[in-house]
Amino acid sequence: MTRKTLVGAAQLGPIARNESRTQVVARMLELMREARARGCDTIAFPELALTTFFPRWYVEDQAEIDSWFEREMPSPATLPLFEEAKKLGIGFYLGYAELAEEADGTHRYNTAILVDKTGVIIGKYRKVHLPGHREHEPWRAFQHLEKRYFERGNLGFGAWRAHVGECEVILGMALCNDRRWPETYRVLGLQGVEMAFIGYNTPIHYPPVPEHDHLQGFHNHLVLQAGAYQNGMWIVGIAKAGKEEGCDLLGQSCIIAPTGEIVAMCSTVEDELITASCDLDRCRELKDNVFNFGLHREPETYRLIVDTKGPVLPA
Amino acid sequence: MTRKTLVGAAQLGPIARNESRTQVVARMLELMREARARGCDTIAFPELALTTFFPRWYVEDQAEIDSWFEREMPSPATLPLFEEAKKLGIGFYLGYAELAEEADGTHRYNTAILVDKTGVIIGKYRKVHLPGHREHEPWRAFQHLEKRYFERGNLGFGAWRAHVGECEVILGMALCNDRRWPETYRVLGLQGVEMAFIGYNTPIHYPPVPEHDHLQGFHNHLVLQAGAYQNGMWIVGIAKAGKEEGCDLLGQSCIIAPTGEIVAMCSTVEDELITASCDLDRCRELKDNVFNFGLHREPETYRLIVDTKGPVLPA
Repeated sequence: MTRKTLVGAAQLGPIARNESRTQVVARMLELMREARARGCDTIAFPELALTTFFPRWYVEDQAEIDSWFEREMPSPATLPLFEEAKKLGIGFYLGYAELAEEADGTHRYNTAILVDKTGVIIGKYRKVHLPGHREHEPWRAFQHLEKRYFERGNLGFGAWRAHVGECEVILGMALCNDRRWPETYRVLGLQGVEMAFIGYNTPIHYPPVPEHDHLQGFHNHLVLQAGAYQNGMWIVGIAKAGKEEGCDLLGQSCIIAPTGEIVAMCSTVEDELITASCDLDRCRELKDNVFNFGLHREPETYRLIVDTKGPVLPA
Repeated sequence: MTRKTLVGAAQLGPIARNESRTQVVARMLELMREARARGCDTIAFPELALTTFFPRWYVEDQAEIDSWFEREMPSPATLPLFEEAKKLGIGFYLGYAELAEEADGTHRYNTAILVDKTGVIIGKYRKVHLPGHREHEPWRAFQHLEKRYFERGNLGFGAWRAHVGECEVILGMALCNDRRWPETYRVLGLQGVEMAFIGYNTPIHYPPVPEHDHLQGFHNHLVLQAGAYQNGMWIVGIAKAGKEEGCDLLGQSCIIAPTGEIVAMCSTVEDELITASCDLDRCRELKDNVFNFGLHREPETYRLIVDTKGPVLPA
């Protein structure tokens, strides 16, 4: 029996600052229903999918910042996603800003969850690689204050066995800037991940090095494709795209085979669903051969990767 | 003052089984002189550049195997390379099979060296990621017996400060299959490498998964480009190319910018020189920003990369 599953990447176009959760969820429900109609077992939404990408603004009022966070999941506004998933029998991946009241205080994370086709949350990931900066940098047209508004994720890079369609599959998650770091994919790959979901909000303008702006699309695909190939996994990259509050966000959401080939890609910067039939057994073509880790990896030579954070230059 | 250096990638076409070292060195000297005439400070040759790619054959006679190895470097046959380099004032990177008589016995490595423009060896690397298999597999049209003929390199992934042209630069080396492993580039990148040389012999036919044969060129560039971008370094990939003793080897030698862009590429599968002017300061565009390791890496979450060789699947 083949282990094929149909997956959908649900790119979202811009979300306005004053757009309500209910309005956004209505857009997502429409994409979810379309995905199910097209036969998808799973639908993946972007990072911070429920609001505008608020780290572009420096805000001092904590109450205003917290208005972009979710205190519970599902909440009244997001419950319809879970109910529709259960009704349709479709799983989903969703990114959102999480405000967690815990014993040691209040924490804020850039979070993603996996929800199975019965509407139950089966996995949670909190973003590890927070990009951008901590302090207000007025010279930028747009801020990128993820390091200010979020704590670094404290759950590591997990992997989850899940029933998807007719298959059992090992799933992984990451978010946005995580995708630029080969360590992300490798820690997932070492847990046997067969399909990873990576939502992103990527401004096309990168203020520190604007001469790279025209390379945003190339870099996005380069790292996703290399990560897929080097670990023999399917990767679903899902953008929040388009001109959002004056800031252009990259689209080009894509589904990538374990060979590194892009098998589906969005061609708009609006709400758009792409789908692909993913044969999970194709991961073995890589995992059992050129990237047979047990046979070919040489971890003794990799120690520097964990022994240092920054560079250690030769004398 | 800009830190620009002109580098040449000297692809070699096929080397016949009965071609002597002297004949091969003569081809290399011609490329070296061309490189100098075109203004190169450095020329890079392929992996195992002095002989045919002998791991394609299963040979039992150790003396015959050893005939493909170098017992000294330089040797009478390879000394002209060092002399010409000194005379022209050009550095080089060279891959060869090394037979090392050491206190604890005889060792054989797949080795590369860096030679400066005075003809002095300044760095040595012994290949870490040996691909292929150890035992004879008669079902293959060609063997890939690197795991049989070589020991795993015991020098790790080094980095060397070198004077190249008018610049001081941090150089790194790897060989062939190393380039498929993101750990290779990361260990180099963590030592501040600004330019890495990677020679290769890559059969287009991969017997375990022949349905990927048409992707060899794509995979070659994908991993080199991702490694360059994710570590902000120039990468020079140098092929032994063409139909060698009936086996087709990939060409597409290339020079890749720290942005991941291919800035020069061979268009034959013969002896061919490509050159590029490399501004070493452009590494900073990546190393100081999106890949500022000290600011953005999160090694505590990477432990699995060194704690396990093979996969550790979720329960």
